[in-house]
Amino acid sequence: MTAVIEQSFARFLKCRECGKEHPPTKLAVCEDCFAPIDMEYDFDSIKLNRKSFINRPRNIWRYRELLPIENSRNIVDLGAGCTPLVKCVNLGEHLGLSNLYIKNDTVNPTYSFKDRPASVAVSKALEFKDRAVGCASTGNLAGAVAAHAGKAGLQCYVLAPSNTERSKFSQVSAYGGKILSIDGTYDDANRLAVLASEEFGWNIVNVTSRPYYVEGSKTMAFEVAEQLGWKTPDQIIIPVASGALLCAMHRGFHQFNKIGLIDDVDVKVNGAQASGCGPVAQAFANRSDSVIPVENPNTIAKSIAIGDPGDGVYVLQTVRSTGGIVGGVSDKEIIEAIKLLARCEGVFSEPAGGVTVALLKKMVEEGKIDKDEITVCCITGNGLKTGEGVIDASENIIQVEATLDALTDKVSKWDGLNASR
Amino acid sequence: MTAVIEQSFARFLKCRECGKEHPPTKLAVCEDCFAPIDMEYDFDSIKLNRKSFINRPRNIWRYRELLPIENSRNIVDLGAGCTPLVKCVNLGEHLGLSNLYIKNDTVNPTYSFKDRPASVAVSKALEFKDRAVGCASTGNLAGAVAAHAGKAGLQCYVLAPSNTERSKFSQVSAYGGKILSIDGTYDDANRLAVLASEEFGWNIVNVTSRPYYVEGSKTMAFEVAEQLGWKTPDQIIIPVASGALLCAMHRGFHQFNKIGLIDDVDVKVNGAQASGCGPVAQAFANRSDSVIPVENPNTIAKSIAIGDPGDGVYVLQTVRSTGGIVGGVSDKEIIEAIKLLARCEGVFSEPAGGVTVALLKKMVEEGKIDKDEITVCCITGNGLKTGEGVIDASENIIQVEATLDALTDKVSKWDGLNASR
Repeated sequence: MTAVIEQSFARFLKCRECGKEHPPTKLAVCEDCFAPIDMEYDFDSIKLNRKSFINRPRNIWRYRELLPIENSRNIVDLGAGCTPLVKCVNLGEHLGLSNLYIKNDTVNPTYSFKDRPASVAVSKALEFKDRAVGCASTGNLAGAVAAHAGKAGLQCYVLAPSNTERSKFSQVSAYGGKILSIDGTYDDANRLAVLASEEFGWNIVNVTSRPYYVEGSKTMAFEVAEQLGWKTPDQIIIPVASGALLCAMHRGFHQFNKIGLIDDVDVKVNGAQASGCGPVAQAFANRSDSVIPVENPNTIAKSIAIGDPGDGVYVLQTVRSTGGIVGGVSDKEIIEAIKLLARCEGVFSEPAGGVTVALLKKMVEEGKIDKDEITVCCITGNGLKTGEGVIDASENIIQVEATLDALTDKVSKWDGLNASR
Repeated sequence: MTAVIEQSFARFLKCRECGKEHPPTKLAVCEDCFAPIDMEYDFDSIKLNRKSFINRPRNIWRYRELLPIENSRNIVDLGAGCTPLVKCVNLGEHLGLSNLYIKNDTVNPTYSFKDRPASVAVSKALEFKDRAVGCASTGNLAGAVAAHAGKAGLQCYVLAPSNTERSKFSQVSAYGGKILSIDGTYDDANRLAVLASEEFGWNIVNVTSRPYYVEGSKTMAFEVAEQLGWKTPDQIIIPVASGALLCAMHRGFHQFNKIGLIDDVDVKVNGAQASGCGPVAQAFANRSDSVIPVENPNTIAKSIAIGDPGDGVYVLQTVRSTGGIVGGVSDKEIIEAIKLLARCEGVFSEPAGGVTVALLKKMVEEGKIDKDEITVCCITGNGLKTGEGVIDASENIIQVEATLDALTDKVSKWDGLNASR
């Protein structure tokens, strides 16, 4: 079920650097200066109020007017979005926060936030009359694009580093996606994807049609604002891979303000990275305006291990303009944070979610978040995708013969050793 | 957010065989005849109409009056339920069905339908003032109970066969659950769980408080009826493990009818099993009223591989009374069905969902489902939990050096070999 609004308000693609306006064609970057280009809308013509949403579908397409699709018949919808904003009472108590929420994007159709941009990008691919889509991916986007491509009847080619978790490849394969497992890093896969898009005419969604693709991600900000009762949180913590999600969410809050759905935008936007691949956090720590790429990422947070983040400098600008920070956390802190979130709130996150929770913990310890601030931590992907490679279950497993004697023996020892949670 | 309704309408536990009524205490089976006992409600006092649900929470607790919790403060809610009922246009076209839906329970908080009974059972454990909960599980229930127990601050002990997928153990461990990996089958783990509940006082939710636990599952029927516009489908296909889900869903439709939310119950209820552990399907095929246990289950559909299903005979009764069938499908058919569903609808199911889709396909081929019948196929768990063990991704993976020449070489060969979907 999607909203039937045939009018599109998407007008032109505007260069983030030189300001040049381009028509909304399949264009990846500014033709003049190669900087990123962003979709601009005819905001004045969008007539929405809070009541407009009462009977809207519970997926990203409830914000149809602010998404760049011309014709609703092209929408490829698997139900991405409208994920829970969970009030975290237990985790909040543990950290000493009264108004803590997580945005739980682990329950999207393919189990990560990437369903949002994939839904928009594959819809746009139908609009462009493409026959094949694809992506450079660390795994989550691969599943999201393959699933939406399957639904749309398009071929899908995924370029991913060969060290991607096998369970993610199984998922892509189930959806019918073809996987090019690249001997190299994500950045190598990404460079090759650019060449492949030119060579084979594939619409590599996070390259060829990037300005449309990224629009999907801002719906996470729309939902957070709506779920908080039409306002921004005081603090938000967002994982930084390419940096596109953070920039898109910040843009989303401002777009809601522009069309009058929220009264003002007063949020500290914070970016979280793994120290093993934290070029933006490093630049922030060094008070630098430029991001030095990390050549060999080394972290369990593979889904955000992008050494050369395309939107890195814009993350720095955004975060600084809002009074937020970009911080790095270690793999050990990530694992502890995954467990902490799972045990307190029953939400099993992939390492990227551990990154945001670990940074949240650190920010509280450093006095960067006040007790009563409305704080939202974004959990962007599901722990099952990385499973046993990250969480070593053996500390919690005891092998037992199928007899009560054996069980009693083991349990008594265990509870002695391991009585508290 | 849960509905604030302090009144409970749960009245007594009624024996399914001898009819004896028991007070709603922690009771597993009828004290007189050891048969299953079902929760009965004061249906006449429940005043609900379709408009009552407009502002209800979007989780199983929207049906609060028909769930057996006395005090809303005890509700442990991670957001189980209110999962999408997806109109399957692509899969429907493939099979020649005009009104096919899947109930997509893969997007529950711990990624299976077991969050429904776990939410009810752990809430009830708080009501019983238990300190430790547990379960016998093939993996899905383990995750669901561990997550809800963590949120409730209760200890959790899982008894599972040692051949359970490791990713499920990782998930349980992340939530803080303790895993007793049993050298034996699910039925061995289940027998041991009964003894453990007596020996250690654990509330083994699918044993000790089974009559409460199973009530959670019927919410899937409530949702299907509500999502279809307050009516039953013409056909529904439900996986059969212990058989509790199928019986609970059938009861759920009738309860909705009793309180006037739906006008009548006119649905063929069908049960799906894997042939490698299909004791109920076998009994149905043999026109038998009794179920002969399978000693050594042998199927990839481990989550439903229960050799001695507690509700097997009631499944036979229910299915026959509605004009449905119980059918078995092979592992090969299961894998093909998982891929078919994933490629058509972008939903990645565990083998149990492959079982229902495979049976759907077989029923269509055998003329047991008419083209226009409103048909619902239940997809009860997520494919990531079983991942690479079930879906062999290698057919869709090509290893490539990070150069365009290498890529071009590989892709040209691939598209030649493998051009169509």
